[in-house]
Amino acid sequence: MDSGFSQRAASYFESLQESICSALTKIDGRSIFREDTWKHAHGGGGRSRVLQEGAVFEKAGVNTSSIRTPLTAATAGRLKMDAREIAASGISLVLHPLNPHVPAVHANFRFLEADNGDWWFGGGADLTPYYLYEEDARHFHGVWKSACDTADASYYPRYKKWCDEYFTVKHRGESRGIGGIFFDDLRGDFDTHFRFIQQCGNAFLGSYAPIVERRRAATYGERERRWQLQRRGRYAEFNLVYDRGTVFGLETEGRVESILMSLPPLARWDYNAVPEPGSSEEKLLAVLRQPKSWI
Amino acid sequence: MDSGFSQRAASYFESLQESICSALTKIDGRSIFREDTWKHAHGGGGRSRVLQEGAVFEKAGVNTSSIRTPLTAATAGRLKMDAREIAASGISLVLHPLNPHVPAVHANFRFLEADNGDWWFGGGADLTPYYLYEEDARHFHGVWKSACDTADASYYPRYKKWCDEYFTVKHRGESRGIGGIFFDDLRGDFDTHFRFIQQCGNAFLGSYAPIVERRRAATYGERERRWQLQRRGRYAEFNLVYDRGTVFGLETEGRVESILMSLPPLARWDYNAVPEPGSSEEKLLAVLRQPKSWI
Repeated sequence: MDSGFSQRAASYFESLQESICSALTKIDGRSIFREDTWKHAHGGGGRSRVLQEGAVFEKAGVNTSSIRTPLTAATAGRLKMDAREIAASGISLVLHPLNPHVPAVHANFRFLEADNGDWWFGGGADLTPYYLYEEDARHFHGVWKSACDTADASYYPRYKKWCDEYFTVKHRGESRGIGGIFFDDLRGDFDTHFRFIQQCGNAFLGSYAPIVERRRAATYGERERRWQLQRRGRYAEFNLVYDRGTVFGLETEGRVESILMSLPPLARWDYNAVPEPGSSEEKLLAVLRQPKSWI
Repeated sequence: MDSGFSQRAASYFESLQESICSALTKIDGRSIFREDTWKHAHGGGGRSRVLQEGAVFEKAGVNTSSIRTPLTAATAGRLKMDAREIAASGISLVLHPLNPHVPAVHANFRFLEADNGDWWFGGGADLTPYYLYEEDARHFHGVWKSACDTADASYYPRYKKWCDEYFTVKHRGESRGIGGIFFDDLRGDFDTHFRFIQQCGNAFLGSYAPIVERRRAATYGERERRWQLQRRGRYAEFNLVYDRGTVFGLETEGRVESILMSLPPLARWDYNAVPEPGSSEEKLLAVLRQPKSWI
C-alpha cells in the first residue's frame, strides 16, 4: 500500500468536502457545519461535518475518512478479497432537507487498496424525492450521464441500472428513490479512473443545487410532512438492513455517529399507511416500484 | 408435524391476543385496535391488531401468526436445523407509549416445529424505559422471576442474562432497555413447557399495566419527548440490524407491515446527541451500558 494512490484519493476527497460544505452552507443560509475529527483504532481517521436544523437542511452530513484496518474473515469474504489489511478512503454525504418538496440526496466516492496490491474505486449518487418532479429527475440523471460520458459511454447505462438494483428496499419491493448512478470494482489504470472519480465528485453540486433552488420555497402542510417522514422510515430501513457502506463501517469499527449520520433527523412508521388512489404520493410509489429511464 | 402441538400452541396465542388487546383497549381509553388478517404464501397466516394515536399508546401492535413455510438453506443454517419445512406460530407485541415516562415494552412467545419432528418453544419480555424508575424495573423483573420460578428456579437467572445479551445494540455498546427474560430452544416434554409458556403469557399484563398506571399522568415537555424519540431511534436500529424475529419474518416472506409494526411511530436521529452530565438521561444510559440486577 505504498503506491501513493490512497493518499492522492484521500486528499481529493478532503478538498471535495471543503467545496461541497462551503456551497451547502451558502445554500442553507442559516446553520453551519459542525466538524468532528476522529481517529480509527487501527490507523487513520476521519473528518465529519454535520449541519442540523438549517433553513433548507434539517440534517446534512458530509464526511471523509481514510483508515487502515485489518479485515475479519467475514468482511474479507463479503468483499471477495484475499487480503488481511485494507486501506479505505472516501467521502460520503447525505442531505435530508426540511421541505418535503426538496429531495434528499446521497453521494459517496471511495478508494480501497489491499495489502496484496489490489485496489479499486467505487461510488455513486442517488436522489430520494418525496414528491416526483420529472424535471428534477431528468436534470439529476442528465448531470450524471454527462459525468459518465466524459469517461466511457457505456458507464451511464450500466451504472444507472446498478443503482436501481442496489438501492432497493427488498422487503418492500420498492427503490429507495429515483436512482442515479452506482458503481464498484473500478480497476485498471489509476490515473484514468481517478480522473473519472474527480469528474463525478465535481459534478455533485450541479446535479443537486438547482433542484434545491427550484423547490425550497414550495409550500407544504401536515400531509406532505407526514408522507416525507414515512418515506424517511423506508430510508432508515434501507440503510440499516441493506447498505453495504453502513455494514462495512460498523464491522470495521468506524465511528458510529459518523456512519449513522445518514439516518434521517425524524422518521415515522405508521402501520399500513397506503397513499390515496390517484394522489401524488401514489404516483411517486409507482415509480419506486418500477424504476424508469429519465434520459 | 401432525403432533397437534402447533395447533394447541397457536390457539393459546390467539386467546392471549384477545385478552391482552381487550385489557390494553381499556387502559388506553381512546383508540381501539384495528385488525388485519393475512395469509402466508405457503400456508397459514396471521392476525395483526394495531392501535394508533391512543391516549396512552402512540402505537401498539399485538400480532399472532401461524404459518408453514419451506426453509431456505440460509434460514435453516441460522436456525441450526436439518429440516426443509417448518411450522411456526407465535404472538408478538410491541407497545410504544406517548408519554416518555411510560416505558415501551415487547413480549413474544413462539412455538416452532420442523418436518423432522424437532420442536421447541421460545419467548421473552423486555422493558424499554426512557426515564429510569427503579421501582418499575424491580416490579417488571419481579413478575417475570415469579413466572419463571413456578417452572424452574434456574430459569430466571439464565433467561435474565440471555435477555441482557440478546437485546444489545452492539455498535452502540448499549442494551435496548433494562431487559427482562429471553429464552429459546426449550425442548423436552411438551406439556411441561407449554404450561410454562402459558404462565408467561398470562403474566404479561401484570408485569406492565401497573407501571403504565403509575406513570401515565406524569408531565413532560420538549426535552423528554426529544430524548424518547432519540431512544426510539436506537430501538429501530436494534430491530432492523439485529433482531432475529424481524430477519426471520422478512426472510420467510411474512407480511412486512405486521413484522415491522414493532418500529416506533416516530423516531429521531440527532447527530452525536450526548446527555448532560448528571442528568436523568445520563443515568438511564449508565444502566443500558452496564446491565444490573433488579431483584
